[in-house]
Amino acid sequence: MSGTHEPTGRVNVNTVAEAAQVSRQTVTNVLRHPERVAPETLTRVQAEIVRLGYRPSAAAQSLQASRAGAIGVELNALGAEYHNAVMAPFVAELTLAAPGHSFHMVTFGSPTHTPTLESYQQLWRGRVVDAFVLADTHVGDPRPAWLRDQGIPFASFGRVWDYPAFTRWVDVDGHHGTGLAVAHCVDAGYATIGYLGSPDGVSVVADARRSGWQDGCRATGRAPGPDRSGPDELDAVRRVADELVAAVGPGGAVVCVTDLHAVAVLHAVWRAGLEPGRDIGIVGFDDSELARMHGLTSVSQPLAEIARTALELVHEALGGDATRADGVLLRPGLTPRGSTRRTDTPPLDATRPLTGTKEEEKT
Amino acid sequence: MSGTHEPTGRVNVNTVAEAAQVSRQTVTNVLRHPERVAPETLTRVQAEIVRLGYRPSAAAQSLQASRAGAIGVELNALGAEYHNAVMAPFVAELTLAAPGHSFHMVTFGSPTHTPTLESYQQLWRGRVVDAFVLADTHVGDPRPAWLRDQGIPFASFGRVWDYPAFTRWVDVDGHHGTGLAVAHCVDAGYATIGYLGSPDGVSVVADARRSGWQDGCRATGRAPGPDRSGPDELDAVRRVADELVAAVGPGGAVVCVTDLHAVAVLHAVWRAGLEPGRDIGIVGFDDSELARMHGLTSVSQPLAEIARTALELVHEALGGDATRADGVLLRPGLTPRGSTRRTDTPPLDATRPLTGTKEEEKT
Repeated sequence: MSGTHEPTGRVNVNTVAEAAQVSRQTVTNVLRHPERVAPETLTRVQAEIVRLGYRPSAAAQSLQASRAGAIGVELNALGAEYHNAVMAPFVAELTLAAPGHSFHMVTFGSPTHTPTLESYQQLWRGRVVDAFVLADTHVGDPRPAWLRDQGIPFASFGRVWDYPAFTRWVDVDGHHGTGLAVAHCVDAGYATIGYLGSPDGVSVVADARRSGWQDGCRATGRAPGPDRSGPDELDAVRRVADELVAAVGPGGAVVCVTDLHAVAVLHAVWRAGLEPGRDIGIVGFDDSELARMHGLTSVSQPLAEIARTALELVHEALGGDATRADGVLLRPGLTPRGSTRRTDTPPLDATRPLTGTKEEEKT
Repeated sequence: MSGTHEPTGRVNVNTVAEAAQVSRQTVTNVLRHPERVAPETLTRVQAEIVRLGYRPSAAAQSLQASRAGAIGVELNALGAEYHNAVMAPFVAELTLAAPGHSFHMVTFGSPTHTPTLESYQQLWRGRVVDAFVLADTHVGDPRPAWLRDQGIPFASFGRVWDYPAFTRWVDVDGHHGTGLAVAHCVDAGYATIGYLGSPDGVSVVADARRSGWQDGCRATGRAPGPDRSGPDELDAVRRVADELVAAVGPGGAVVCVTDLHAVAVLHAVWRAGLEPGRDIGIVGFDDSELARMHGLTSVSQPLAEIARTALELVHEALGGDATRADGVLLRPGLTPRGSTRRTDTPPLDATRPLTGTKEEEKT
């Protein structure tokens, strides 16, 4: 396994300079302009480069001295048991964006839910990657503080709750997203607007989505409709969805914490003998494959922009740039589909997502 | 971007040996036992190593001379428009299996459906990866023959239809899988067993699944039930699913070409006022997230075994081993869930997948 036979610590231009008792610039000259270096020094530095196994990559020979040109991303959320609908498309967006930043992406993971802290260290010490992009962060996540303590550079998709001084994160404003969903339902003419969420306190992310729905309702001068909670399992949330559809009633709409909850509401609407969209509006969250295949209106996370921003933050970390005052909070958009299409309103163009900005222009 | 400033071709131990006019062994000695090398030769070889930018990795310094220790996998199937339910879990399984083969996985992709042949070449020439694992192969796929012509090593998950001499592939016996599905429905007591597939000739994979259903029915002494086709889109396949449920009738079952088709049948069963499992059996294919979240019995691809086998085939390719006489065809299993549970039969243990072998023991 890579890293097993590595010396502790990474061999970089400084290691070579120290060993050969020359400056960093001399090492760089040996690599790029050997004709400028005195023969005896040249021989000595070359011998140290070979002895230490210093590997100046193609990238290293240009601007980015001593870089592997790779960023690691852990696939812990791709396992069978735990489902994060945006993890796979986010890794795809990172993969597409990486070459524009002179990086490629290296995936790694653990067969269990436990993050493999040792894998982070091995990949970094073994010089397989220069830094990491974390995803799927949560309260109690041991990775950020541990990476900081190890001096391993990283950026995060998702706020780092347990390490507030860390600002190299990019996240999506979930409160704004469910607010957009409410505004969209009001525009479409739905009366009561209910909510199907995760149980309170399960995650900060879910709590922000619920409060966005509440504030969104109040912003349009109406009281929040019925509010129910159920776990991220289609079967378990079924009965709750039936209750909620009965409580909201025809002419109402349900805003949901995830697309999976929205699928449960869709099933409940059918079981009640009603027509999704025409009788009951449904809005999901994540604009995942599940929302697309079920024709569900959904709040969309700007994954391509999140990926680009995460890579920029990694660049800043590697460049030793000053830490930003705060993380980057992006506004989600909303993709309208049939589940909020009423027969008495003209069909929406499902191919054009409404961005947060456009939604604001309406008000 | 990595590879942009690379010389054409890869710098390996032979390149260094030629440039320094010494043997490969001498280059290896310079790296591993410099004390055995005459001073003048040592200086000359070290100078060439540095000049050429030859990078003996940790792995290269042990057994695998001149290897990057990485395998590339293209994420073309993770895009928003085209959905391959097993692509993300397959990449996760490759990622988990790779360290056991002293590799890590590097992802790459293109924003369009078109495979980026140039990316394969750049990653390989730039020594970012040693070889590739192809996935999601299909008839007319330009990648296999092109990689062969470039001399780039690879293995494939999926048969390589246009290049029959290539046998470094691993695939799943879809014909066996739908046969298992039929046998399972017959065991559960369903009478008529219908099929919801892709249109004929769309893919060799889909055709094998349909013929497995036909042969499976005949093997149990019954005529194949109603056979309908619809595209991989939930909305488009909806009407076909309604027709098929009516044609099969209560007490019958439907075997499906994908889990998405099975979800369409599930919806049709509800619309018909029937209960999935009790009234109509439903079996999907792929045992994807979609099947798990909907409680659908599904034919399961052994993705972990496929990933391990693909990496073994890559090892053989890199080791210059003789090509096998034929590819590796693995048998799928079947994961029973509520969608084939009848009230008059004892509940099946949903946590224990039936393997192909176990299913055979029954007959």
